[in-house]
Amino acid sequence: MEIVCLDLEGVLVPEIWVNFAELTGIEELRATTRDVPDYDQLMRFRLGVLDQHKLGIRDIEKVISELRPLDGAVDFLAALRSRYQVVILSDTFYEFATPLMAQLGWPTLFCHRLEVDAGGRIIDYKLRLSDHKRKAVEAFKRLNFRTVAAGDSYNDTSMLAEADTGILFSPPQNVIDEFPQFQVTRTYAELRAAIDAAAGR
Amino acid sequence: MEIVCLDLEGVLVPEIWVNFAELTGIEELRATTRDVPDYDQLMRFRLGVLDQHKLGIRDIEKVISELRPLDGAVDFLAALRSRYQVVILSDTFYEFATPLMAQLGWPTLFCHRLEVDAGGRIIDYKLRLSDHKRKAVEAFKRLNFRTVAAGDSYNDTSMLAEADTGILFSPPQNVIDEFPQFQVTRTYAELRAAIDAAAGR
Repeated sequence: MEIVCLDLEGVLVPEIWVNFAELTGIEELRATTRDVPDYDQLMRFRLGVLDQHKLGIRDIEKVISELRPLDGAVDFLAALRSRYQVVILSDTFYEFATPLMAQLGWPTLFCHRLEVDAGGRIIDYKLRLSDHKRKAVEAFKRLNFRTVAAGDSYNDTSMLAEADTGILFSPPQNVIDEFPQFQVTRTYAELRAAIDAAAGR
Repeated sequence: MEIVCLDLEGVLVPEIWVNFAELTGIEELRATTRDVPDYDQLMRFRLGVLDQHKLGIRDIEKVISELRPLDGAVDFLAALRSRYQVVILSDTFYEFATPLMAQLGWPTLFCHRLEVDAGGRIIDYKLRLSDHKRKAVEAFKRLNFRTVAAGDSYNDTSMLAEADTGILFSPPQNVIDEFPQFQVTRTYAELRAAIDAAAGR
């Protein structure tokens, strides 16, 4: 009995902040942890920029509704869910992900939450749990599931290491170099084949 | 951040074995733990009966495909999933549940598994974990989710007790009498209102 744990951004949907910056034309929102290494500082900077531009949660949802899952992601995920239990493990926020989850047919998603006031202004963010991707895989293993995890970047590697099988999907070269223990896949067909092989199907 | 844990049979779909007995006309398959109190004995009896009637997994799937979710279940679940993370916790087997999961839009399901040989004959059953419903709720709580659980019968009560909020849905009178601590709901509208109240929405 298997659970497949998938990262969201870069695996099923495009990078949300980068695309949000593009769609709104707010260049500062392109900043990532490469620019501001401290995540909390980066998030406070982002929330400050949103506030400055008077972008509340409704505006953000509207922009994100224009985003589309990656080419082939909808079919890949639908086929996967007809064969395996799938849980999406992501470091995004429910408020950002929801318009994309609707397009993906509402898979189960574990992520974080924004704090929004009655007027729709984002006042804070709440991380549900640190290192929550790895901890979720650990919990599924304790519930006697065989676990297969796939992701594309650094923040996925602890989950990939914890899973019975960890698979990289379209990762950047530095992640490939640093984590040679994980199989690299670049298309949904390759990823599906790697998942089936891990599950012995 | 909430996870709603739902029992399957009696909450979203009809009792699978009872309906399977009805659709195939095999009266012996109506036996429940009320007739054969030992679950393992009951399952071995059921598998023996299936074998006797030469019913393999394909025949069973075909019969179960004729089952429909309970009236209103599809809409209830779709609306719930657009607002909460939902995981179905059931003591059925993936092989039985799959045709029903397709009709419910592939929600995440934690249950058990049948062992099927290459010819489709069911040779054994595998319980993934004892008391797995309660243990799943416990795991979700450790992952910092607020948990709401709903079910209709005895085998749900440990999960209802473990959850931050436990709700009975269309339970038999003896369960109501024995577990007066759980709110009783009888329609999807009532169940949804109880879930929203528990989540403070």
